Amino acid sequence: MQSKIKQKRMPAEKRRVQIMEETMKLVARKGFDGTKTKDIAAACGVSEAAIFKIFKSKQEILLSGIEYKFGGPKRELIRKVNFDPKKPEIAMRFVANNIFETVENNIDIVKMIILTFLEHPEYIKKHIKKGALLEKKVIMEAMKAGIESRLYKKMDADIAVSLLPIAVIGMVITRVLADGKKTSKKEREKIIDQIIEVYLHGVMKKSPGGGR
Amino acid sequence: MQSKIKQKRMPAEKRRVQIMEETMKLVARKGFDGTKTKDIAAACGVSEAAIFKIFKSKQEILLSGIEYKFGGPKRELIRKVNFDPKKPEIAMRFVANNIFETVENNIDIVKMIILTFLEHPEYIKKHIKKGALLEKKVIMEAMKAGIESRLYKKMDADIAVSLLPIAVIGMVITRVLADGKKTSKKEREKIIDQIIEVYLHGVMKKSPGGGR
Repeated sequence: MQSKIKQKRMPAEKRRVQIMEETMKLVARKGFDGTKTKDIAAACGVSEAAIFKIFKSKQEILLSGIEYKFGGPKRELIRKVNFDPKKPEIAMRFVANNIFETVENNIDIVKMIILTFLEHPEYIKKHIKKGALLEKKVIMEAMKAGIESRLYKKMDADIAVSLLPIAVIGMVITRVLADGKKTSKKEREKIIDQIIEVYLHGVMKKSPGGGR
Repeated sequence: MQSKIKQKRMPAEKRRVQIMEETMKLVARKGFDGTKTKDIAAACGVSEAAIFKIFKSKQEILLSGIEYKFGGPKRELIRKVNFDPKKPEIAMRFVANNIFETVENNIDIVKMIILTFLEHPEYIKKHIKKGALLEKKVIMEAMKAGIESRLYKKMDADIAVSLLPIAVIGMVITRVLADGKKTSKKEREKIIDQIIEVYLHGVMKKSPGGGR
Protein backbone atom coordinates (compact mmCIF):
# COMPACT_ATOMS: atom_id res chain seq x y z
CA MET A 1 0.00 0.00 0.00
CA GLN A 2 2.74 2.33 1.06
CA SER A 3 4.56 1.82 -2.26
CA LYS A 4 1.50 2.75 -4.30
CA ILE A 5 1.20 6.05 -2.52
CA LYS A 6 4.94 6.68 -2.93
CA GLN A 7 4.66 6.42 -6.71
CA LYS A 8 2.32 9.36 -6.78
CA ARG A 9 3.39 11.56 -3.92
CA MET A 10 6.86 11.34 -2.63
CA PRO A 11 7.78 13.30 0.50
CA ALA A 12 9.42 16.57 -0.64
CA GLU A 13 12.91 15.70 0.64
CA LYS A 14 12.85 12.27 -1.00
CA ARG A 15 11.77 13.84 -4.29
CA ARG A 16 14.59 16.36 -4.03
CA VAL A 17 17.12 13.57 -3.55
CA GLN A 18 15.62 11.55 -6.40
CA ILE A 19 15.88 14.49 -8.80
CA MET A 20 19.51 15.13 -7.82
CA GLU A 21 20.47 11.47 -8.20
CA GLU A 22 18.75 10.97 -11.56
CA THR A 23 20.30 14.18 -12.86
CA MET A 24 23.79 13.10 -11.84
CA LYS A 25 23.30 9.71 -13.50
CA LEU A 26 22.10 11.35 -16.72
CA VAL A 27 24.90 13.93 -16.79
CA ALA A 28 27.50 11.19 -16.20
CA ARG A 29 26.22 9.50 -19.37
CA LYS A 30 25.20 12.36 -21.61
CA GLY A 31 27.09 15.36 -20.34
CA PHE A 32 25.55 18.52 -18.92
CA ASP A 33 24.30 20.03 -22.15
CA GLY A 34 23.16 16.64 -23.43
CA THR A 35 20.90 16.19 -20.41
CA LYS A 36 17.55 17.89 -20.93
CA THR A 37 15.14 18.77 -18.13
CA LYS A 38 12.52 16.63 -19.83
CA ASP A 39 14.86 13.60 -19.54
CA ILE A 40 15.23 14.30 -15.82
CA ALA A 41 11.46 14.65 -15.46
CA ALA A 42 10.91 11.36 -17.32
CA ALA A 43 13.50 9.55 -15.19
CA CYS A 44 11.74 10.77 -12.03
CA GLY A 45 8.22 10.23 -13.31
CA VAL A 46 7.19 13.84 -12.72
CA SER A 47 6.49 16.90 -14.87
CA GLU A 48 9.15 19.46 -15.71
CA ALA A 49 7.10 21.99 -13.75
CA ALA A 50 7.38 19.82 -10.64
CA ILE A 51 11.16 19.94 -10.95
CA PHE A 52 11.26 23.70 -11.28
CA LYS A 53 9.16 24.03 -8.14
CA ILE A 54 12.07 22.54 -6.24
CA PHE A 55 15.11 23.76 -8.19
CA LYS A 56 15.72 26.98 -10.09
CA SER A 57 17.85 25.41 -12.82
CA LYS A 58 19.68 22.31 -14.04
CA GLN A 59 22.85 23.86 -12.73
CA GLU A 60 21.31 24.17 -9.27
CA ILE A 61 20.24 20.52 -9.33
CA LEU A 62 23.75 19.43 -10.16
CA LEU A 63 25.53 21.62 -7.62
CA SER A 64 23.04 20.57 -4.94
CA GLY A 65 23.65 16.96 -5.93
CA ILE A 66 27.40 17.28 -5.50
CA GLU A 67 26.90 19.04 -2.17
CA TYR A 68 24.43 16.32 -1.11
CA LYS A 69 26.81 13.51 -2.00
CA PHE A 70 30.10 15.01 -0.87
CA GLY A 71 29.39 18.05 1.31
CA GLY A 72 28.05 16.60 4.53
CA PRO A 73 30.24 13.47 4.75
CA LYS A 74 33.26 15.57 3.85
CA ARG A 75 32.68 18.18 6.54
CA GLU A 76 32.20 15.36 9.03
CA LEU A 77 35.54 13.83 8.06
CA ILE A 78 37.39 17.13 8.02
CA ARG A 79 36.19 17.73 11.57
CA LYS A 80 37.97 14.52 12.52
CA VAL A 81 41.33 15.71 11.17
CA ASN A 82 43.78 15.60 14.00
CA PHE A 83 45.58 18.81 13.20
CA ASP A 84 48.96 19.24 14.82
CA PRO A 85 50.80 22.36 13.60
CA LYS A 86 54.10 20.68 14.43
CA LYS A 87 53.25 17.76 12.19
CA PRO A 88 51.18 19.14 9.33
CA GLU A 89 51.83 15.97 7.32
CA ILE A 90 49.42 14.03 9.54
CA ALA A 91 46.56 16.16 8.28
CA MET A 92 47.89 15.90 4.73
CA ARG A 93 48.03 12.13 4.82
CA PHE A 94 44.54 11.97 6.27
CA VAL A 95 43.18 14.23 3.56
CA ALA A 96 45.04 12.41 0.79
CA ASN A 97 43.60 9.09 1.95
CA ASN A 98 40.16 10.60 2.09
CA ILE A 99 40.40 12.05 -1.44
CA PHE A 100 41.59 8.71 -2.78
CA GLU A 101 38.75 6.77 -1.16
CA THR A 102 36.09 9.30 -2.09
CA VAL A 103 37.12 9.34 -5.75
CA GLU A 104 37.37 5.57 -5.91
CA ASN A 105 33.99 4.99 -4.28
CA ASN A 106 32.20 7.63 -6.33
CA ILE A 107 33.84 7.28 -9.69
CA ASP A 108 30.59 7.96 -11.57
CA ILE A 109 30.01 11.23 -9.74
CA VAL A 110 33.64 12.14 -10.31
CA LYS A 111 33.23 11.39 -14.02
CA MET A 112 30.14 13.56 -14.01
CA ILE A 113 32.05 16.41 -12.32
CA ILE A 114 34.88 16.12 -14.87
CA LEU A 115 32.41 16.09 -17.77
CA THR A 116 30.65 19.17 -16.43
CA PHE A 117 34.01 20.83 -15.77
CA LEU A 118 34.97 20.29 -19.42
CA GLU A 119 31.68 21.73 -20.65
CA HIS A 120 31.16 24.50 -18.08
CA PRO A 121 34.27 25.05 -15.97
CA GLU A 122 32.59 28.03 -14.28
CA TYR A 123 29.96 25.81 -12.61
CA ILE A 124 32.53 23.58 -10.99
CA LYS A 125 34.66 26.56 -10.11
CA LYS A 126 31.64 28.02 -8.32
CA HIS A 127 31.21 24.75 -6.48
CA ILE A 128 34.87 24.73 -5.44
CA LYS A 129 34.74 28.37 -4.37
CA LYS A 130 31.68 27.64 -2.25
CA GLY A 131 34.08 25.71 -0.09
CA ALA A 132 33.33 22.25 -1.36
CA LEU A 133 37.00 21.52 -1.79
CA LEU A 134 37.44 21.43 1.95
CA GLU A 135 40.44 19.18 1.56
CA LYS A 136 42.34 21.97 -0.10
CA LYS A 137 41.62 24.21 2.89
CA VAL A 138 43.03 21.63 5.27
CA ILE A 139 46.17 21.24 3.18
CA MET A 140 46.45 25.04 2.92
CA GLU A 141 46.19 25.32 6.70
CA ALA A 142 48.75 22.57 7.19
CA MET A 143 51.02 24.24 4.65
CA LYS A 144 50.77 27.65 6.33
CA ALA A 145 51.41 26.11 9.74
CA GLY A 146 54.45 24.38 8.26
CA ILE A 147 55.79 27.58 6.73
CA GLU A 148 55.18 29.56 9.94
CA SER A 149 56.92 26.99 12.10
CA ARG A 150 59.76 26.98 9.55
CA LEU A 151 59.38 23.28 8.90
CA TYR A 152 58.40 24.04 5.32
CA LYS A 153 60.04 26.17 2.71
CA LYS A 154 58.57 29.50 1.82
CA MET A 155 56.89 29.02 -1.53
CA ASP A 156 53.88 30.12 -3.53
CA ALA A 157 51.42 28.34 -1.24
CA ASP A 158 48.69 28.32 -3.85
CA ILE A 159 50.67 26.24 -6.35
CA ALA A 160 52.26 24.02 -3.71
CA VAL A 161 48.93 23.36 -2.02
CA SER A 162 47.20 22.43 -5.29
CA LEU A 163 49.86 19.86 -6.10
CA LEU A 164 48.86 17.37 -3.42
CA PRO A 165 45.17 17.02 -4.31
CA ILE A 166 46.02 17.13 -8.03
CA ALA A 167 48.54 14.31 -7.60
CA VAL A 168 46.15 12.18 -5.54
CA ILE A 169 43.11 12.80 -7.75
CA GLY A 170 45.12 12.26 -10.96
CA MET A 171 46.67 9.08 -9.62
CA VAL A 172 43.42 7.53 -8.44
CA ILE A 173 41.50 8.47 -11.59
CA THR A 174 44.11 7.05 -13.94
CA ARG A 175 44.37 3.91 -11.82
CA VAL A 176 40.66 3.29 -11.38
CA LEU A 177 39.73 4.08 -14.97
CA ALA A 178 42.74 2.57 -16.70
CA ASP A 179 43.00 -0.57 -14.61
CA GLY A 180 39.31 -0.82 -13.85
CA LYS A 181 39.92 -2.39 -10.49
CA LYS A 182 39.65 -1.37 -6.88
CA THR A 183 42.79 -0.63 -4.96
CA SER A 184 43.25 -2.67 -1.79
CA LYS A 185 43.67 -0.76 1.47
CA LYS A 186 47.30 -1.84 1.66
CA GLU A 187 48.02 -0.75 -1.89
CA ARG A 188 46.25 2.55 -1.34
CA GLU A 189 48.33 3.25 1.72
CA LYS A 190 51.50 2.45 -0.21
CA ILE A 191 50.53 4.89 -2.96
CA ILE A 192 49.60 7.62 -0.49
CA ASP A 193 52.82 7.05 1.46
CA GLN A 194 54.81 7.49 -1.70
CA ILE A 195 52.93 10.61 -2.80
CA ILE A 196 53.35 12.18 0.65
CA GLU A 197 57.02 11.18 0.73
CA VAL A 198 57.65 12.86 -2.63
CA TYR A 199 55.55 15.85 -1.62
CA LEU A 200 57.39 16.40 1.64
CA HIS A 201 60.93 15.38 0.74
CA GLY A 202 61.14 14.96 -3.03
CA VAL A 203 62.70 12.17 -5.06
CA MET A 204 66.28 13.34 -4.56
CA LYS A 205 68.41 12.20 -1.69
CA LYS A 206 69.16 14.81 0.96
CA SER A 207 72.91 14.80 0.40
CA PRO A 208 73.37 14.48 -3.32
CA GLY A 209 77.19 14.62 -2.96
CA GLY A 210 77.24 11.52 -0.74
CA GLY A 211 78.17 8.87 -3.24
CA ARG A 212 80.52 10.83 -5.45
CA MET B 1 38.95 26.02 -60.36
CA GLN B 2 41.24 24.21 -58.00
CA SER B 3 38.74 24.63 -55.18
CA LYS B 4 35.88 23.16 -57.18
CA ILE B 5 37.87 20.04 -57.89
CA LYS B 6 38.90 19.82 -54.22
CA GLN B 7 35.28 19.64 -53.11
CA LYS B 8 34.82 16.44 -55.05
CA ARG B 9 38.16 14.73 -54.99
CA MET B 10 40.59 15.48 -52.29
CA PRO B 11 44.05 13.93 -52.37
CA ALA B 12 44.01 10.80 -50.20
CA GLU B 13 46.32 12.19 -47.49
CA LYS B 14 44.35 15.43 -47.25
CA ARG B 15 41.12 13.46 -46.92
CA ARG B 16 42.65 11.33 -44.20
CA VAL B 17 43.64 14.44 -42.24
CA GLN B 18 40.23 16.02 -42.78
CA ILE B 19 38.46 12.93 -41.41
CA MET B 20 40.72 12.83 -38.36
CA GLU B 21 40.24 16.52 -37.63
CA GLU B 22 36.48 16.53 -38.06
CA THR B 23 36.20 13.42 -35.87
CA MET B 24 38.24 15.01 -33.09
CA LYS B 25 36.10 18.16 -33.23
CA LEU B 26 32.90 16.12 -33.04
CA VAL B 27 34.13 13.89 -30.21
CA ALA B 28 35.24 16.97 -28.24
CA ARG B 29 31.64 18.21 -28.42
CA LYS B 30 29.54 15.07 -28.32
CA GLY B 31 31.75 12.43 -26.77
CA PHE B 32 32.94 9.25 -28.46
CA ASP B 33 29.67 7.32 -28.34
CA GLY B 34 27.67 10.43 -29.20
CA THR B 35 29.64 10.87 -32.43
CA LYS B 36 28.20 8.72 -35.20
CA THR B 37 30.04 7.80 -38.39
CA LYS B 38 27.28 9.46 -40.37
CA ASP B 39 28.01 12.77 -38.57
CA ILE B 40 31.67 12.41 -39.50
CA ALA B 41 30.74 11.65 -43.10
CA ALA B 42 28.42 14.66 -43.21
CA ALA B 43 31.08 16.96 -41.74
CA CYS B 44 33.55 15.81 -44.40
CA GLY B 45 31.06 15.82 -47.26
CA VAL B 46 31.68 12.16 -48.13
CA SER B 47 29.83 8.88 -47.73
CA GLU B 48 30.29 6.58 -44.75
CA ALA B 49 31.70 3.98 -47.15
CA ALA B 50 34.41 6.43 -48.22
CA ILE B 51 35.47 6.76 -44.58
CA PHE B 52 35.65 3.02 -44.04
CA LYS B 53 37.87 2.70 -47.10
CA ILE B 54 40.47 4.70 -45.20
CA PHE B 55 39.89 3.70 -41.59
CA LYS B 56 38.73 0.43 -40.05
CA SER B 57 36.75 2.01 -37.23
CA LYS B 58 35.87 5.19 -35.36
CA GLN B 59 38.39 4.16 -32.75
CA GLU B 60 41.11 3.96 -35.40
CA ILE B 61 40.24 7.44 -36.68
CA LEU B 62 40.55 8.88 -33.21
CA LEU B 63 43.80 7.16 -32.28
CA SER B 64 45.30 8.11 -35.65
CA GLY B 65 44.15 11.67 -35.03
CA ILE B 66 45.89 11.84 -31.66
CA GLU B 67 49.03 10.33 -33.20
CA TYR B 68 48.83 12.80 -36.10
CA LYS B 69 48.51 15.79 -33.78
CA PHE B 70 50.87 14.81 -31.01
CA GLY B 71 53.02 11.90 -32.19
CA GLY B 72 55.38 13.44 -34.72
CA PRO B 73 55.98 16.81 -33.04
CA LYS B 74 56.44 15.02 -29.73
CA ARG B 75 59.06 12.60 -31.03
CA GLU B 76 60.85 15.53 -32.61
CA LEU B 77 60.95 17.36 -29.29
CA ILE B 78 61.96 14.31 -27.29
CA ARG B 79 64.91 13.89 -29.61
CA LYS B 80 66.01 17.34 -28.57
CA VAL B 81 66.08 16.43 -24.87
CA ASN B 82 69.53 17.13 -23.58
CA PHE B 83 69.84 14.09 -21.39
CA ASP B 84 72.56 14.22 -18.76
CA PRO B 85 72.47 11.24 -16.36
CA LYS B 86 74.17 13.35 -13.71
CA LYS B 87 71.45 15.95 -13.96
CA PRO B 88 68.25 14.09 -14.76
CA GLU B 89 66.23 17.13 -13.69
CA ILE B 90 67.20 18.95 -16.89
CA ALA B 91 65.29 16.39 -18.93
CA MET B 92 62.41 16.52 -16.43
CA ARG B 93 62.10 20.28 -16.65
CA PHE B 94 62.21 20.13 -20.44
CA VAL B 95 59.49 17.51 -20.54
CA ALA B 96 57.34 19.30 -17.96
CA ASN B 97 57.53 22.50 -19.99
CA ASN B 98 56.62 20.59 -23.12
CA ILE B 99 53.60 18.90 -21.51
CA PHE B 100 52.38 22.23 -20.18
CA GLU B 101 52.66 23.95 -23.56
CA THR B 102 51.16 21.05 -25.49
CA VAL B 103 48.12 20.84 -23.21
CA GLU B 104 47.61 24.59 -23.22
CA ASN B 105 47.88 24.88 -27.00
CA ASN B 106 45.65 21.89 -27.71
CA ILE B 107 43.06 22.17 -25.01
CA ASP B 108 40.25 20.95 -27.28
CA ILE B 109 42.13 17.81 -28.22
CA VAL B 110 42.99 17.28 -24.57
CA LYS B 111 39.31 17.67 -23.67
CA MET B 112 38.50 15.15 -26.36
CA ILE B 113 41.07 12.70 -24.97
CA ILE B 114 39.67 13.12 -21.45
CA LEU B 115 36.10 12.60 -22.69
CA THR B 116 37.11 9.46 -24.55
CA PHE B 117 39.08 8.28 -21.53
CA LEU B 118 35.95 8.62 -19.38
CA GLU B 119 33.86 6.69 -21.89
CA HIS B 120 36.40 4.11 -23.06
CA PRO B 121 39.51 4.11 -20.88
CA GLU B 122 40.87 1.11 -22.80
CA TYR B 123 41.22 3.14 -26.02
CA ILE B 124 43.35 5.79 -24.41
CA LYS B 125 45.28 3.17 -22.49
CA LYS B 126 46.08 1.51 -25.81
CA HIS B 127 47.24 4.85 -27.16
CA ILE B 128 49.47 5.40 -24.13
CA LYS B 129 50.88 1.88 -24.33
CA LYS B 130 51.69 2.40 -28.00
CA GLY B 131 54.30 4.79 -26.70
CA ALA B 132 52.42 8.01 -27.23
CA LEU B 133 53.23 9.10 -23.72
CA LEU B 134 56.85 9.57 -24.68
CA GLU B 135 57.25 12.12 -21.94
CA LYS B 136 56.70 9.46 -19.35
CA LYS B 137 59.49 7.41 -20.90
CA VAL B 138 61.89 10.32 -20.67
CA ILE B 139 61.00 10.91 -17.03
CA MET B 140 61.32 7.17 -16.37
CA GLU B 141 64.77 7.18 -17.94
CA ALA B 142 65.77 10.25 -15.95
CA MET B 143 64.42 8.65 -12.79
CA LYS B 144 66.30 5.40 -13.35
CA ALA B 145 69.51 7.27 -14.10
CA GLY B 146 68.97 9.22 -10.89
CA ILE B 147 68.41 6.08 -8.84
CA GLU B 148 71.41 4.33 -10.38
CA SER B 149 73.73 7.23 -9.75
CA ARG B 150 72.33 7.38 -6.21
CA LEU B 151 71.16 10.94 -6.62
CA TYR B 152 67.59 9.78 -6.19
CA LYS B 153 66.00 7.65 -3.54
CA LYS B 154 65.04 4.12 -4.32
CA MET B 155 61.30 4.10 -4.72
CA ASP B 156 58.52 2.49 -6.70
CA ALA B 157 59.58 4.14 -9.96
CA ASP B 158 56.21 3.61 -11.58
CA ILE B 159 54.33 5.70 -9.02
CA ALA B 160 57.07 8.31 -8.68
CA VAL B 161 57.39 8.70 -12.44
CA SER B 162 53.64 9.15 -12.95
CA LEU B 163 53.52 11.93 -10.38
CA LEU B 164 55.35 14.51 -12.48
CA PRO B 165 53.19 14.34 -15.63
CA ILE B 166 50.05 14.03 -13.49
CA ALA B 167 51.00 17.14 -11.54
CA VAL B 168 51.82 19.14 -14.67
CA ILE B 169 48.77 17.99 -16.63
CA GLY B 170 46.43 18.49 -13.66
CA MET B 171 47.84 21.93 -12.97
CA VAL B 172 47.61 23.18 -16.54
CA ILE B 173 44.12 21.75 -17.10
CA THR B 174 42.69 23.27 -13.94
CA ARG B 175 44.37 26.59 -14.74
CA VAL B 176 43.40 26.80 -18.40
CA LEU B 177 39.85 25.60 -17.91
CA ALA B 178 39.10 27.30 -14.61
CA ASP B 179 40.76 30.62 -15.38
CA GLY B 180 40.14 30.48 -19.10
CA LYS B 181 43.29 32.38 -19.87
CA LYS B 182 46.68 31.62 -21.34
CA THR B 183 49.64 31.44 -19.04
CA SER B 184 52.50 33.78 -19.92
CA LYS B 185 55.91 32.23 -20.54
CA LYS B 186 57.21 33.75 -17.33
CA GLU B 187 54.29 32.45 -15.30
CA ARG B 188 54.59 29.01 -16.86
CA GLU B 189 58.25 28.84 -15.97
CA LYS B 190 57.45 29.85 -12.39
CA ILE B 191 54.85 27.09 -12.11
CA ILE B 192 57.16 24.47 -13.64
CA ASP B 193 60.03 25.60 -11.39
CA GLN B 194 57.84 25.14 -8.38
CA ILE B 195 56.53 21.73 -9.47
CA ILE B 196 60.07 20.51 -10.19
CA GLU B 197 61.33 21.95 -6.89
CA VAL B 198 58.61 20.10 -4.95
CA TYR B 199 59.16 16.96 -7.03
CA LEU B 200 62.92 16.91 -6.45
CA HIS B 201 63.18 18.27 -2.92
CA GLY B 202 59.70 18.40 -1.40
CA VAL B 203 58.03 21.18 0.55
CA MET B 204 59.87 20.49 3.81
CA LYS B 205 63.14 22.09 4.68
CA LYS B 206 66.12 19.78 4.67
CA SER B 207 66.95 20.26 8.34
CA PRO B 208 63.61 20.32 10.09
CA GLY B 209 65.24 20.80 13.50
CA GLY B 210 66.97 24.03 12.44
CA GLY B 211 64.70 26.59 13.99
CA ARG B 212 63.74 24.77 17.15
